[in-house]
Amino acid sequence: MSCEKLQSYDVIVGNEVFTLSGALCELIASRRALIVTTPTVDRLYGQRLRRCITDSGVDATVEVMSLTEHDKQMDTVLEICAAAHSRGLARHGLLVAFGGGVCCDLVTVASSLFRRGIPYSCVPTTLVGQVDAGIGLKGAINFANQKNYLGCFAPPKGVLVDPTLLISLPLLELQSGIAEILKMAIIRDETLFAKVADHGAQLIASRFNDAEGTGPEIIARSIELMLSELAPNCYEDRTLLRLVDFGHTFSPKLEELSGYHLRHGLAVALDISLSTAIAMELTLIPQATGELIFETIDSFGLPTYSPLFEPRDLQHAAEVTANHRAGALNLVVPTAIGSGTFISRLDELTPTLITAAIKRLSDRQEFSSVQGGVKEFAAQAPSFSGAR
Amino acid sequence: MSCEKLQSYDVIVGNEVFTLSGALCELIASRRALIVTTPTVDRLYGQRLRRCITDSGVDATVEVMSLTEHDKQMDTVLEICAAAHSRGLARHGLLVAFGGGVCCDLVTVASSLFRRGIPYSCVPTTLVGQVDAGIGLKGAINFANQKNYLGCFAPPKGVLVDPTLLISLPLLELQSGIAEILKMAIIRDETLFAKVADHGAQLIASRFNDAEGTGPEIIARSIELMLSELAPNCYEDRTLLRLVDFGHTFSPKLEELSGYHLRHGLAVALDISLSTAIAMELTLIPQATGELIFETIDSFGLPTYSPLFEPRDLQHAAEVTANHRAGALNLVVPTAIGSGTFISRLDELTPTLITAAIKRLSDRQEFSSVQGGVKEFAAQAPSFSGAR
Repeated sequence: MSCEKLQSYDVIVGNEVFTLSGALCELIASRRALIVTTPTVDRLYGQRLRRCITDSGVDATVEVMSLTEHDKQMDTVLEICAAAHSRGLARHGLLVAFGGGVCCDLVTVASSLFRRGIPYSCVPTTLVGQVDAGIGLKGAINFANQKNYLGCFAPPKGVLVDPTLLISLPLLELQSGIAEILKMAIIRDETLFAKVADHGAQLIASRFNDAEGTGPEIIARSIELMLSELAPNCYEDRTLLRLVDFGHTFSPKLEELSGYHLRHGLAVALDISLSTAIAMELTLIPQATGELIFETIDSFGLPTYSPLFEPRDLQHAAEVTANHRAGALNLVVPTAIGSGTFISRLDELTPTLITAAIKRLSDRQEFSSVQGGVKEFAAQAPSFSGAR
Repeated sequence: MSCEKLQSYDVIVGNEVFTLSGALCELIASRRALIVTTPTVDRLYGQRLRRCITDSGVDATVEVMSLTEHDKQMDTVLEICAAAHSRGLARHGLLVAFGGGVCCDLVTVASSLFRRGIPYSCVPTTLVGQVDAGIGLKGAINFANQKNYLGCFAPPKGVLVDPTLLISLPLLELQSGIAEILKMAIIRDETLFAKVADHGAQLIASRFNDAEGTGPEIIARSIELMLSELAPNCYEDRTLLRLVDFGHTFSPKLEELSGYHLRHGLAVALDISLSTAIAMELTLIPQATGELIFETIDSFGLPTYSPLFEPRDLQHAAEVTANHRAGALNLVVPTAIGSGTFISRLDELTPTLITAAIKRLSDRQEFSSVQGGVKEFAAQAPSFSGAR
């Protein structure tokens, strides 16, 4: 028996202040909707959201829940389902995630289970959410002490990206998001890379809401690249060679080793650095290009080295990842600004190679710490608790 | 963005004693597999299954769990996921459900969540499982005191139907399964209906393993019809007009009202009777044809009437179902043996119509109870606890 499923969705990037209101009510239309959000987002935008609901007359209510990384469990998914049940949502209802990556992840899983799957939409409020976690098909929860161990692939009904929401974000959230933008730029788009590298400091200062509109422009381009990579293989059933896995081979292990004090975007920056150093060791990328990547990462206050870089742990991370990729490592490494390739076999990643790559980053680190750069930033990181 | 997913699977019906062994090991092939089963099935077939695993050298282990209707909860799904994790299953691993409908339902949900979806197969051991619950894409768990409230659509890797497994089933399980076969026959296939009607008693006596092979032949035809109905709309995203919903509009409510002492197949028989009586009231089906359906149901010891037939409850059931079908009732009623139609609008199902249909069945019941038929059977039903 053949089972065919064809769905499509749009990611709408707004370019006016709080474009969300109108677009969200348009998306809800005549559906009954439950909007799931966090206390922080509710404090910042709840009043405006409720006014928009009342003014437009849509059948939507807001459910405020704690949705931290710690809550990323099946219990929380079932709480969302229970709220949807109380609200009387049927299979033509709509769940909306109005929050960061964790909120989007949890709502995606809940929507895929509720009545065997109901439509959902994401309105990501963090930069990581807007360029990565909130725009794809993946939902996930943590299980058995492992991040994103259970989950689903479920295309949203639509995604609304409102860059004006970023204005309330803490610094670290913007840095974290820039790491995901850099990921896309390094492996796909030299022009985007140049723009991010040039405007980085100013983008962080303006919370991506600069007068020239560079922030929203960069976000839109990053999303466009991400979707073009996802589209032909969005259920990951065609190939496990995915360029968007750049920065995502060692990073889950680094997050785990840090006791989850290391934020995802920072772990991605570390993974990008390590993968680039590996490419340099293998002369897959010119030394100067590799150095340019490191410097750009530095310039955003993101780390290129971590004391968690232990050869044995990284080897183990590679093994776990390969196990998830049907036995193939498929490590993405850059070959130039704008393109990348894969190191497919696990045995190509020798202990010597890993050790040499780590040393390269450690040597750079020592040099830059003399100048008082990244270390100060790294020391601040664990104490952050943000708006997710 | 477009998201396309195309999967296909085969349902293999065996015709030799315990065809399962070879076919299952072939299906597992080089995958790492976890076979989930119940204490009852393990007691009956566990030894044979383990011998087949050892002999063929496949990488499979058996996990025995309590999987009753009471266990059809997310906790049990997570227990299966934990077992799969302990077993080191990766996204290319395989979960196998070796049991009844509940086992298939739970394994389907677990496989759809584990690592965002891994392959699974079903080896249904009950007649309902072999012709209905175990051959489609649907997985489900109970939630908020409602049957199958959460779940998923996930195509299996393959389904193995071994009619020789039915030899150990209690009578009520066979009757329950025949109700699902009758469902398909009445709305799709006059020849199948005639065959089931003619050989019913003998099929029950032989546990569908008669010397002539009529049992497996009927099972295979019923599966073929079911799959042909499912295929064009297997995610229920094309239409909510589904002929296979025959017998499934009022039955969930009847099961609920009975405190889940009424088995699914018996509830389906009651729903088929009620839907047929409604068609008779509306003269959508000749009276004699309706009567033939009732008599056939009688002949299997299945009920055509229940004291749970209360107009208000049935009206409520219709409303709940319509809510799940985007506001349309889409009640399937037969128009002849081998074809059916839909009563689409909820307001077509008037209280007068329901009351008249109930009275028709109640009058028949009183007549047949004088002759000592169905009632005796109905009294036995709640005390049964079977092999699921």
